[in-house]
Amino acid sequence: MVQVDFYIYMAYINPRGDAKMAEDNVIYIGNKPVMSYVLAVVTQFNNGFDEVVIKARGRAISRAVDTAEVVKNKFMPGIEIKDIKIGTESIVGEGGDKANVSSMEITMKAKSS
Amino acid sequence: MVQVDFYIYMAYINPRGDAKMAEDNVIYIGNKPVMSYVLAVVTQFNNGFDEVVIKARGRAISRAVDTAEVVKNKFMPGIEIKDIKIGTESIVGEGGDKANVSSMEITMKAKSS
Repeated sequence: MVQVDFYIYMAYINPRGDAKMAEDNVIYIGNKPVMSYVLAVVTQFNNGFDEVVIKARGRAISRAVDTAEVVKNKFMPGIEIKDIKIGTESIVGEGGDKANVSSMEITMKAKSS
Repeated sequence: MVQVDFYIYMAYINPRGDAKMAEDNVIYIGNKPVMSYVLAVVTQFNNGFDEVVIKARGRAISRAVDTAEVVKNKFMPGIEIKDIKIGTESIVGEGGDKANVSSMEITMKAKSS
């Protein structure tokens, strides 16, 4: 369940939008244009990772799907979608109030030839 | 890849927002509140369907994930997510111009006991 205003607030105090924040082979999707994340994913594959995981929460989920589709269809036909998971994360705000937000993980990997 | 304005336009001339438009066991996610679609999914299961498919395009994708998570976590613990597919659909506008939009299908089913 998305509580959008709260999510935007959380994104503001803890920005996940910067592709440079990616740790290892995980790319966090934020509010930047899709191409920023596409570039980040392609770079990770070119850096030698066999798998790259795209993670998103709330409204960024649709952008995560866009990213995976653009990587697969336009840039790296040798990459396939290995797994898609969805879930719910509980976020605790400053006042201790909780909000639930949907999450998604898309695992992309090189096709086994 | 989402071309948001175009998508909103398509949604306007061909609204998918009404849960009543669901055919068989497919629920199309539009711009209504998540609870509208949660109710539609729960109703289809209560009508005897063993599987219900949630479909969404573009920005509605995150709402599709919300719907599946709320059904599973809050209303029907006996239902699980069987499969998640993502893809790209090509939409042709009035002038014959094409736009790509990401799509998602979430298949939910009763847990085998």
